Amino acid sequence: MKGAILGIARTARQSVDLIDVTHEVAPHDVTEGALALEAAAPWFPASTVHVAVVDPGVGTSRRGLAVVARDQVFIGPDNGLFTPFVGAPGWRAFELRASQYRLPSVSATFHGRDVFAPAAAHVALGVDPALLGPPVADPVLLPWPEARSSDGAVAGAVVHVDRFGNLVTSIRVTSLSDLRTMTVRVSGRPVDVVSTYGDLDAGRVGALVGSSGRLEIAVREGSAAAALRAQRGTRVTVSPTSAAPASTRSSRVSRVRSRRRP
Amino acid sequence: MKGAILGIARTARQSVDLIDVTHEVAPHDVTEGALALEAAAPWFPASTVHVAVVDPGVGTSRRGLAVVARDQVFIGPDNGLFTPFVGAPGWRAFELRASQYRLPSVSATFHGRDVFAPAAAHVALGVDPALLGPPVADPVLLPWPEARSSDGAVAGAVVHVDRFGNLVTSIRVTSLSDLRTMTVRVSGRPVDVVSTYGDLDAGRVGALVGSSGRLEIAVREGSAAAALRAQRGTRVTVSPTSAAPASTRSSRVSRVRSRRRP
Amino acid sequence: MKGAILGIARTARQSVDLIDVTHEVAPHDVTEGALALEAAAPWFPASTVHVAVVDPGVGTSRRGLAVVARDQVFIGPDNGLFTPFVGAPGWRAFELRASQYRLPSVSATFHGRDVFAPAAAHVALGVDPALLGPPVADPVLLPWPEARSSDGAVAGAVVHVDRFGNLVTSIRVTSLSDLRTMTVRVSGRPVDVVSTYGDLDAGRVGALVGSSGRLEIAVREGSAAAALRAQRGTRVTVSPTSAAPASTRSSRVSRVRSRRRP
Repeated sequence: MKGAILGIARTARQSVDLIDVTHEVAPHDVTEGALALEAAAPWFPASTVHVAVVDPGVGTSRRGLAVVARDQVFIGPDNGLFTPFVGAPGWRAFELRASQYRLPSVSATFHGRDVFAPAAAHVALGVDPALLGPPVADPVLLPWPEARSSDGAVAGAVVHVDRFGNLVTSIRVTSLSDLRTMTVRVSGRPVDVVSTYGDLDAGRVGALVGSSGRLEIAVREGSAAAALRAQRGTRVTVSPTSAAPASTRSSRVSRVRSRRRP
Repeated sequence: MKGAILGIARTARQSVDLIDVTHEVAPHDVTEGALALEAAAPWFPASTVHVAVVDPGVGTSRRGLAVVARDQVFIGPDNGLFTPFVGAPGWRAFELRASQYRLPSVSATFHGRDVFAPAAAHVALGVDPALLGPPVADPVLLPWPEARSSDGAVAGAVVHVDRFGNLVTSIRVTSLSDLRTMTVRVSGRPVDVVSTYGDLDAGRVGALVGSSGRLEIAVREGSAAAALRAQRGTRVTVSPTSAAPASTRSSRVSRVRSRRRP
Repeated sequence: MKGAILGIARTARQSVDLIDVTHEVAPHDVTEGALALEAAAPWFPASTVHVAVVDPGVGTSRRGLAVVARDQVFIGPDNGLFTPFVGAPGWRAFELRASQYRLPSVSATFHGRDVFAPAAAHVALGVDPALLGPPVADPVLLPWPEARSSDGAVAGAVVHVDRFGNLVTSIRVTSLSDLRTMTVRVSGRPVDVVSTYGDLDAGRVGALVGSSGRLEIAVREGSAAAALRAQRGTRVTVSPTSAAPASTRSSRVSRVRSRRRP
């Protein structure tokens, strides 16, 4: 893929900055890829072109896609990988159909190299994404459940277990203050709310606001997935603490009070 | 290695683009390294310098090598890593002996840093590869069996099992049309011919043309190596379908017919 | 982290070279990170800024640090990661406190992105490290035991087991000649001294000078950790050979004599 991009840039006598974000997404794991994109994209400058290839359907009739959102462009297969960006204000999507922005010969097994990387190179060099192909109104979306009840409680699920065993959930939390008066439960079991991994004793389970704004469940220097026997789909809830048993509440509050400031 | 390259470029007041192709080649696995180079090189621009270090013999009498082929240069140990390029039209090879293109002190354990990366930096900055040392006429080559019989049948072997469990074979196939009238067998067992992974039902074994033109055996979202108990050296054959049992043939043909077009 | 760096560079209308050194340090393994830095840094040009994030204490009161040493700058958590550089001639360290060199909002869980990468970007673009915050005289240091007795013997320990199973020790050896008249013992058991991996027969244990000047114990195409049941902390000694049994000495010397020259 990098060779294809460099070749197109070389032909255009321009240069591009090629940055690896991650190669550690598990094979075929579209959700993990989408979360990696969601976590990385906001920190890159405007006009960045992201190419993402988690593509179990390569060579089938699944579409190739360019999604324009947040002043950036996202290019890859239409399989849910761009769920975090579809629906952002002013988002647009285009199917990758224009043959002049592909390699001359397209294999059935490696569209990353033959379709996505070339499209990304052309866009990075100035081509309008709208020239890549017809508009797409209905990109494939991942099911990321997050239901909010009338009393302020939120029910969601684990959407990803990372390589440390941390549980990433479908519940979005802007800041720790959103959690301070709430009780977090995993499969019904309450867990401490903390501000960072370091606030946990070794082996202790805690809920915290992850670096991309998702509620996460972690064990310090351990695996929350193992400790809680949790996996993708495990139910996670956040509800006002008044509904929680007193013993849990006081324990939680003391943890929050004792946390060390960075 | 990157530090050594940047240091040489900095001294020359020039800049180079440093691109990581892969760090996932298994330790000491020269064949996997050679296949990675074979897969990547054609997509990079002319004049690209590839440095490859899979080097179990570092510090012994094995030679260091620069192979010039296909308008590119390949630099690393002389242990078979450059098998795909030796024999290409107009190929030349040189032993890395000139001390002015090495670091001042060469360790016995890390020629990647002390010998190969500096040679690559100098070539990237304009040094003629022929200045690196004396010509080499007999680079070490990997044994990659591919025998073609008089009736059009080809006998080869699995040369690599990738991290998905796909089997990469020694048999080269330019396009799917070469396979349509053929039967592919792994250890004598016929497998379906498909155009891409997505044509397979989950768990089903198929043979296809890989993205670098090698016949590959795959299981969709599974491991062909596990499904077929196959490993490096396992025999793979391609023969005219007339020699195949009728039941296998019709099954195969129907799969090809039903495949979805990208 | 790369996005944060590129964003700052873009705002300053400057460009930076972003180089990945390694992403293979085991989670939370500060020692492995420190050894990776020690191995890589000397080969990079002057003025290189290294950002290192092995940071189990993120979000706690552990300090962020910029260490200036050897004409380079090292930025990351104050947890021992910069042990190899603290104490180098003219070293200085500063705590990362100046808010103008952080991202506007600092999370409790990802200082790599919010604190370290921005500081590194600003230093790479010309900011004096002394502006990052107050001087630090007592950075956290890793315990790396190396005791030298009056008769020239050295007692140390395994400080790291790498992914090949090689044992990296706390004992520094400038060149092989330092080892030729010495006997190396792991947990009291003598091992052959060799100049490189290739001098070992497959499966044989040997001691050699690693590429960063540390005494290492290796098995060719095998795991020394498994062969010797060794782990971090396992005792390693180097002593004058006169103290070693004659049989061991002659065996060792013959190995050294028979080694092949690169």
